[in-house]
Amino acid sequence: MAETRKAVVLLSGGLDSAVAAAVARAQGFALCALTVDYGQRHARELAAAHRVAASLRVAEHRVVSVDLRALGGSVLTGPGAVPKDRDAAARGQGIPSTYVPARNTILLSVALGWAEALGAHDLFIGVHALDYSGYPDCRPEYVAAFERLANLATREGVEGRLMRVHAPLVDHTKADIVRRGAELGVDFSATHSCYDPTPDGLPCGRCDACRIRRAAFASAGLPDSVAYASEEST
Amino acid sequence: MAETRKAVVLLSGGLDSAVAAAVARAQGFALCALTVDYGQRHARELAAAHRVAASLRVAEHRVVSVDLRALGGSVLTGPGAVPKDRDAAARGQGIPSTYVPARNTILLSVALGWAEALGAHDLFIGVHALDYSGYPDCRPEYVAAFERLANLATREGVEGRLMRVHAPLVDHTKADIVRRGAELGVDFSATHSCYDPTPDGLPCGRCDACRIRRAAFASAGLPDSVAYASEEST
Repeated sequence: MAETRKAVVLLSGGLDSAVAAAVARAQGFALCALTVDYGQRHARELAAAHRVAASLRVAEHRVVSVDLRALGGSVLTGPGAVPKDRDAAARGQGIPSTYVPARNTILLSVALGWAEALGAHDLFIGVHALDYSGYPDCRPEYVAAFERLANLATREGVEGRLMRVHAPLVDHTKADIVRRGAELGVDFSATHSCYDPTPDGLPCGRCDACRIRRAAFASAGLPDSVAYASEEST
Repeated sequence: MAETRKAVVLLSGGLDSAVAAAVARAQGFALCALTVDYGQRHARELAAAHRVAASLRVAEHRVVSVDLRALGGSVLTGPGAVPKDRDAAARGQGIPSTYVPARNTILLSVALGWAEALGAHDLFIGVHALDYSGYPDCRPEYVAAFERLANLATREGVEGRLMRVHAPLVDHTKADIVRRGAELGVDFSATHSCYDPTPDGLPCGRCDACRIRRAAFASAGLPDSVAYASEEST
């Protein structure tokens, strides 16, 4: 029997990466989950990553620290308020202050290094370009450019074993992602989306991440098992 | 008077990055030096990075930790012996065990994040594809692919302010780099090249990095002020 192929799956603890990992599992990959602790203010995400990894029964889970607080440029890693109560129109106006400079490039680079060390040729990332927050590094052309880079950057690529960067949700709406996750049996209660949880860990219900999540469950007609600090609807 | 443009310069503590930084300075950039502590066994490189930054009078110097020991795949970050006493022919045989998976991609990604946070549009890296150790992520096509990615990955790129990735030494031999550095007044005594220094910090004189460095100074007809543990010639 052939050995199961390994895939390195970026697992943040959020909903999208949990669904992307479930897609990789459904495609038959053994999951090597990678979580990057980049100094995000919503450190609860890391605890969620451990819960999600356990619920997906990953083959292996590594956490690598890259302290982006040293570089600044985002309210997620430095001072400044997380924007609240923005509707879809307001969210459509340019790149928000929650954008972390080069974050996905850094995450994918570390994933690429681990994949190469493992002899894996497949990376999975849960980015999507619809219903997103206007981040440049979530677009399909970005993912394609990273895959091209990966094949020039590595021993694997040089030796002709192609590296593939999978973004299975890139053309999904957030509601599609919720539906896909439900079909694949993802335990949404393990995930954490909020950028600015309360001191006792409840999602605020009002940041872009909470509002997009809540709207997606509503649109998919599915219950979101998470309790929010603010029950204001989107 | 216009503000001096900033460039983010990757500064490892080695000779190549010191010369690349000196080139950036000669081009009129204010230097924002970035050193990544990736868990390399030759931690003396980090002390050298501080000396080089001081000698170049950089505007700013940041050190970011990314612990690649968690991922493995290289004798520079994990167990295994550093190859010694290899001649140029032996070094030409494929990618050596000192290759760190995706290292330059990780370094450039962090540099890209800092550049974006600073509002800088220029990155400098001291890679070169001649007299190198066979690393895939030192080739001009790799650098071009990263620049393309950078312009898709960032706010700067999306908003039409082009990011540039400069590899001013990419077509230099190591002897050319030594000559260029000498012309630019680089203090080579501040730099550290050895992969496997002795416990008291002397370069071994026998690893690929030492042998390439010694041969380059000999070929350039310039003295290397560094004392080696082994005086065996290359």
